[in-house]
Amino acid sequence: MFKYLLDHMLRYIDLDEEEKAIVTNHFKYKKLSKKDYVLKSGDVCQGNYFILTGCLRLYVITNSGAEQILHFGISGWWMSDLDSFDKQLPSDYYIQAVECTEVAFISKANYEALMIKIPKLNKYFRIMMQIAYTAKLKKLELFLCHTAEERYHSFNKAFPDFVQRIPQYMLASFLGFTPGFLSLLRAKRSKVD
Amino acid sequence: MFKYLLDHMLRYIDLDEEEKAIVTNHFKYKKLSKKDYVLKSGDVCQGNYFILTGCLRLYVITNSGAEQILHFGISGWWMSDLDSFDKQLPSDYYIQAVECTEVAFISKANYEALMIKIPKLNKYFRIMMQIAYTAKLKKLELFLCHTAEERYHSFNKAFPDFVQRIPQYMLASFLGFTPGFLSLLRAKRSKVD
Repeated sequence: MFKYLLDHMLRYIDLDEEEKAIVTNHFKYKKLSKKDYVLKSGDVCQGNYFILTGCLRLYVITNSGAEQILHFGISGWWMSDLDSFDKQLPSDYYIQAVECTEVAFISKANYEALMIKIPKLNKYFRIMMQIAYTAKLKKLELFLCHTAEERYHSFNKAFPDFVQRIPQYMLASFLGFTPGFLSLLRAKRSKVD
Repeated sequence: MFKYLLDHMLRYIDLDEEEKAIVTNHFKYKKLSKKDYVLKSGDVCQGNYFILTGCLRLYVITNSGAEQILHFGISGWWMSDLDSFDKQLPSDYYIQAVECTEVAFISKANYEALMIKIPKLNKYFRIMMQIAYTAKLKKLELFLCHTAEERYHSFNKAFPDFVQRIPQYMLASFLGFTPGFLSLLRAKRSKVD
């Protein structure tokens, strides 16, 4: 069940059979239906979620009551509110399944225990954090240095399958513009094509 | 010379005297004058920089030729283009001293060697990356969910000393608006005060 998770770890660190068994024992499996939540604002984030299949989104409700998506995760990505997870404090965020999604997840207590049992997992998670940080810095650059239209084209070029897969209003939220503006861009693009 | 760096590490991990000496031997010290660069676009990022005193900024040149600041670092923060540093590929960014700045820095080769010699440093850098990632996610939220004015007040409230310390045009760039707009906000604020 956790083969994909173990294979992912093996890309960055070595694990022998005993260590693989220890990792597996510290994770749980969960199958989420579309629109199921693993975190709601006001609750403590109970897990660090590795996406086996499907797609999760992390969003916040703005002062005007709108959903603002800050992060999408697909298979092979980690998803959590790490600040809430780490400090065990209430989160401002929601994490919801965009489609039917399977996750391997670890609780805070198990995460801490696992790091002590297999310290080299710190290397794996350091690299995961580094990748996630670099992606967020790039996204910030997209917002600060590029127009909404450039953001759309850049994202479409980098993740064409993903753009086809998620609902249009979610993509618009993630890229920071209205669904109407996204429809205009798509119409313009199809004329060019 | 590296006491502040070692003390910072000791907040998160234990290091005995021998390990402290190993860490120290893998770092170098550099004193930067105001406007000195440690990285220029097109070059490979040669170090991961721990700021002992002073302030560094990371910026990119936009298509229109403007400087867009993506990141500031003050004492106790790490600064690097980690993607360039890690892959040893040319960077898109500039890292420059905003004021007279002292750094402890480590090369890629020494970083890799140090992680092998003292594996628990992976834990320290995992936590550093986690803090940096959470800060970037919060900044993205500020951009996506708040007006320019709200961004300014939020940043001013969180880092009042820092706001006083850096040139106004740099603060405006970092917060994603023009220096003129920042002057207007400051004038409005001083009237309220």
